[in-house]
Amino acid sequence: MTDVVIRKGSTADAHFPLKGGAGSDAVHTDPVYAYAICHLHSSRPGLKGTGLAFTLGAGNELVCQAIRYLFRYVEGREIRELMAEFGKVFKTMAEDPKLRWLGPHKGVVHLALASVVNACFDLWAKAEHKPLWKLLIDLSPEAIFNTLDLSYLEDVLNHQQALALLREAGKDREQRLSLAERGYPGYDTSVGWFQYSDEQVKENIRKAMAAGFTAMKLKVGSEQPERDIRRAYLLREIAGEEASLMLDANQQWNLPRALQMSEQLRDMRPYWIEEPTHPDDVQAHLHLADAIRPFKLAMGEHLPNRIVFKNYLQVGVMAFNQVDALRVGGVSEFITISLLSKKFGVPVVPHVGDMGQLHQHLVLFNHIALGHQALFLEYIPHLRSKFKFPAEVKDGTYRTPQVPGSSTDLTGF
Amino acid sequence: MTDVVIRKGSTADAHFPLKGGAGSDAVHTDPVYAYAICHLHSSRPGLKGTGLAFTLGAGNELVCQAIRYLFRYVEGREIRELMAEFGKVFKTMAEDPKLRWLGPHKGVVHLALASVVNACFDLWAKAEHKPLWKLLIDLSPEAIFNTLDLSYLEDVLNHQQALALLREAGKDREQRLSLAERGYPGYDTSVGWFQYSDEQVKENIRKAMAAGFTAMKLKVGSEQPERDIRRAYLLREIAGEEASLMLDANQQWNLPRALQMSEQLRDMRPYWIEEPTHPDDVQAHLHLADAIRPFKLAMGEHLPNRIVFKNYLQVGVMAFNQVDALRVGGVSEFITISLLSKKFGVPVVPHVGDMGQLHQHLVLFNHIALGHQALFLEYIPHLRSKFKFPAEVKDGTYRTPQVPGSSTDLTGF
Repeated sequence: MTDVVIRKGSTADAHFPLKGGAGSDAVHTDPVYAYAICHLHSSRPGLKGTGLAFTLGAGNELVCQAIRYLFRYVEGREIRELMAEFGKVFKTMAEDPKLRWLGPHKGVVHLALASVVNACFDLWAKAEHKPLWKLLIDLSPEAIFNTLDLSYLEDVLNHQQALALLREAGKDREQRLSLAERGYPGYDTSVGWFQYSDEQVKENIRKAMAAGFTAMKLKVGSEQPERDIRRAYLLREIAGEEASLMLDANQQWNLPRALQMSEQLRDMRPYWIEEPTHPDDVQAHLHLADAIRPFKLAMGEHLPNRIVFKNYLQVGVMAFNQVDALRVGGVSEFITISLLSKKFGVPVVPHVGDMGQLHQHLVLFNHIALGHQALFLEYIPHLRSKFKFPAEVKDGTYRTPQVPGSSTDLTGF
Repeated sequence: MTDVVIRKGSTADAHFPLKGGAGSDAVHTDPVYAYAICHLHSSRPGLKGTGLAFTLGAGNELVCQAIRYLFRYVEGREIRELMAEFGKVFKTMAEDPKLRWLGPHKGVVHLALASVVNACFDLWAKAEHKPLWKLLIDLSPEAIFNTLDLSYLEDVLNHQQALALLREAGKDREQRLSLAERGYPGYDTSVGWFQYSDEQVKENIRKAMAAGFTAMKLKVGSEQPERDIRRAYLLREIAGEEASLMLDANQQWNLPRALQMSEQLRDMRPYWIEEPTHPDDVQAHLHLADAIRPFKLAMGEHLPNRIVFKNYLQVGVMAFNQVDALRVGGVSEFITISLLSKKFGVPVVPHVGDMGQLHQHLVLFNHIALGHQALFLEYIPHLRSKFKFPAEVKDGTYRTPQVPGSSTDLTGF
């Protein structure tokens, strides 16, 4: 095989304004979907890796700037050699003794790390002429392990335990391979954005059902509790008794309000309540999780790294793990967190800052190689036209991507 | 009184390289001390507010850039009017619906918030011709309360409880006023930087003792445990049985290593063990705190916001609260966290990214107005020549600053 050497990195600052309340929630009232794009240009003509971090527009260029600090750790490296010891490279980048102060492992510098890491995995898959999910499921447990950094997890998942988990999960992988043929189920997040009128929500629910979705999500967190309650029961009424209906407060509530609202929404039987309060508040989630049984909490969209995930999993309040590979340290830390979540028996249902482009690969890997339950993957259609190879979702199901790479190339960037 | 209107903000990116291993620890091996400076130029000729956020050099300009996003929230405002409702202003800045995605409330954007908030308090004190500590202790409980944002703390400290705490603490403040005359005790962090040789450490301990310090700190976290142990017992031997000696691992250990090292350092009787492991790992700290009794943990230097502090205080592992007003959201969130800490009975012993310049004011306020124990304040001398009015430390004691403002103006910036 010819060497594929990373010659040079570059960044692009891509902003996509949304219209008519799309993307709005109780906290993020006027979102612009934006990507801090990392491009890794290689020695093979025309071949480049693309990595994304997701923001809401403001400050996206800060992430681009932070990405450029990290190029020195990957420029000049042959991609397969790099990925064979990527766990060490990840650690070196994440622990940069000066940049680390700006986190550690959170905020702008960690978003930048996500973008660079994702570009490395994308380039690797393209160099191997495989879609990322296929590249990943073809790796040995040792090769997967070598892409991970388990620092600070040793008290619950050390080197030996991680390898044992990977080997154990690999034993019955053959029977799970068929999912790649059937496709991964999706759920529709875009029926109930915060600023949509009741009429819009009704129409969207009917459209989603017609498109084959049986799971969908509504944004809550209104100033007036009545609005949340009306919309939530409306969703149940139209979507029917069997539908899986999720409520997402996007951190808008404090604990007393979350307790009160969860009680009032009980009869609507939410499949999960998502981000009820501040993502740093493990103790508030613990209190709430106890109070709302049998209903369950979903979170992870704003958790920055594997250490915070470890804490949430240890205290047992995270029923659905919504890690996003565009916020944690990219594909590498996503897999670390998925492995950790597997150990604690918690399904991974990613938040899709990438609109599902990258995560459609990662959930297939999680199911086939790690033995995670194939629940459903969030689907957000608003940027379909911006991607070179947009995810194909038919009959409420993600069709398994076949193009080499991680499906994150954007048209015009 | 004449109006003092904030006309315009500007930033400065100040880097101060250190020499000979000064500032080094197990994780931050080659620090440059740097400030992302916020200047708020006012309508009164020559009068400007100065705020600082602290970094280790790389990425300092990202913080400067993020500061500039926040100017629109304060430009055009009269400073006393602004500070009369500063809690609301703080919340508006911290909850910017787009920038918030880059945290929330952590990393580069929160460091930027710190710098802007600190500049507001500095300008306020200068406009009132008072050193900041004096301005703050002269405020009524209501006026202090109005500078704070208690969002997401309501489950442990709501509006009424906070006001009650402030009023209660104010009752016996007169008897604590005398501390401003005596000066606030200091402790010496610079005796045992990580890269100093044993000989240097010995000499520094003797110098610190001669300068009147009875409390000092050593950096641990060596690759070879023997080095940590040798240096720690050396410190005890030279400083004597009565000295308060702190060990600081700067997050270098994972939990198994922290448990093992704490055991081996037991006979050296550390006054506290600081940042034993990752600052996001509440559960690891909980486990460790149980194991090392009667020894205690200090942390806070890398905790980004009041919500994380709440969690550490709730689980009861934080014996010393090392909040730094240059990392959390400035003076406002520092006071919020001090109030919270008071409620939980935990002393505040700030980390001094400001070299003590700003915190010498804040610890006086904490003692006099909040009734916090006056333990000691960290002292780091390396940037003395860079400040216009460097903290005066004599006989191991900070002399109370008398110049209007928060003592954070730097020469040449």
